Amino acid sequence: MKTHPFDKAIKLVAQDDGTWLGHTSAAYGNMVGPFGGVTAAQALNAVLVHPQLLGEPISLTVNFAAAVANGPFSVQARAARTNRSTQHWIVEMIQAGQTVLTATVVTAVRRETWSLDEESMPACPLPEHVSLPKTPNPIEFVKRYEMRPIMGGMPEVWDASGHSSLSQLWVRDEPPRPLDFAALSAIADIFFPRVFIRRSTLVPVGTVSMTVYFHANGQQLKDTGSGYLLGQARAQAFRNGFFDQTSQLWNEAGSLLVTTHQVVYYKE
Amino acid sequence: MKTHPFDKAIKLVAQDDGTWLGHTSAAYGNMVGPFGGVTAAQALNAVLVHPQLLGEPISLTVNFAAAVANGPFSVQARAARTNRSTQHWIVEMIQAGQTVLTATVVTAVRRETWSLDEESMPACPLPEHVSLPKTPNPIEFVKRYEMRPIMGGMPEVWDASGHSSLSQLWVRDEPPRPLDFAALSAIADIFFPRVFIRRSTLVPVGTVSMTVYFHANGQQLKDTGSGYLLGQARAQAFRNGFFDQTSQLWNEAGSLLVTTHQVVYYKE
Repeated sequence: MKTHPFDKAIKLVAQDDGTWLGHTSAAYGNMVGPFGGVTAAQALNAVLVHPQLLGEPISLTVNFAAAVANGPFSVQARAARTNRSTQHWIVEMIQAGQTVLTATVVTAVRRETWSLDEESMPACPLPEHVSLPKTPNPIEFVKRYEMRPIMGGMPEVWDASGHSSLSQLWVRDEPPRPLDFAALSAIADIFFPRVFIRRSTLVPVGTVSMTVYFHANGQQLKDTGSGYLLGQARAQAFRNGFFDQTSQLWNEAGSLLVTTHQVVYYKE
Repeated sequence: MKTHPFDKAIKLVAQDDGTWLGHTSAAYGNMVGPFGGVTAAQALNAVLVHPQLLGEPISLTVNFAAAVANGPFSVQARAARTNRSTQHWIVEMIQAGQTVLTATVVTAVRRETWSLDEESMPACPLPEHVSLPKTPNPIEFVKRYEMRPIMGGMPEVWDASGHSSLSQLWVRDEPPRPLDFAALSAIADIFFPRVFIRRSTLVPVGTVSMTVYFHANGQQLKDTGSGYLLGQARAQAFRNGFFDQTSQLWNEAGSLLVTTHQVVYYKE
């Protein structure tokens, strides 16, 4: 069986000093450097493959400290605190002796409890009734995702016509791949920068920090398989060079798998 | 002039090894141990007082790794990366040789740009038209905040009647104190656990991770002064032992100062 490009992209090789060696993936290239979602997945993976790991991810915060250059990188993951059922990780990604990413991860052994989704999946057409974009996007990482925009897709005219930043889309890996925590953390970063949509204007942008809360456990991800996820994103504030984004990802069965937030630098 | 209890609570004393020594504050005590909001503010303060600090806070993530015991603690803040206009910090709080909190902070020198609040302040009565709770709350830290609940206050009857987790309230320090980044990060944690409101049932809870995005800069906080903040909070999902909370804080002039999220452990 052929290895999926995402599995190649997040592959880490254990080093003698306890760190992990990885390499950026041309298949997930962005305009300059790699797609940040895959960088986040690589950081999370340093915890997922760690021999000391306890439980499954609950929370991931990734801070993009500097542009990641195409090429190799080193990741170190340290369990700063291990409790009976929760664990707290500090992660750093290094290139050429310099920190390019910091992250914290909380993992836990979950137990079944009273549960309820308060944020219901919005009513929207089924994936098979939503068209793919007419023009394929030339950016490499975008080709690694099947995206079916329902509303708030990339503006077709850059006329500064400014409207709501709300987007909804169906999304899954291309080619399809069974969902897991690493893939989910990458998809959490799939939304185009809200400032493009709100202003219908292209300005330089870069995610500064992203937080992902995993509501799903491993079994729910298995049950979701390679089905579509409904993604929804909107901004709450754009202010003096930084805007935020608040997003949700549901599976086709309507279960809220992830809520995620990020703060993004923008110029002008 | 008498020192405000919050300033006493977040006070850190530089140590010879570059760490900072602090002490939990009885004035901000919770049922067991200190109020997490003040613990978050203490962690942020280790960056704010650091001689290497560049700019102002943009993003703060605090992970509550273990129960903080009443007493002294040590904080270390390290600038993992300093760029031209942004800086990335890793913070750890230690008690008795063990990590009790991990945090990351992004700071930046902000520039004036096109700005817009997409999430407008909800229509609600003015602070002077909203009553204080009839029964004063016996918990010490709650007395340090003037809270005027508009909707979704603490249930008055614990009858498992379950309704929306949405809360709105006016809040400010008690006694009033000019707003700053440390105070804002504490107030970001002021909302009662959503699971209490959603279920009208008391269950054991504890915040695991909290992220704060600061949309306001120092000047906007100065302009806000000691006025009220409108806080709004709701949950998106409760699932197998963890729920999330998404919240906003506006000043009386209607400017969105902070968006904040947390994931909280709950039992049963």
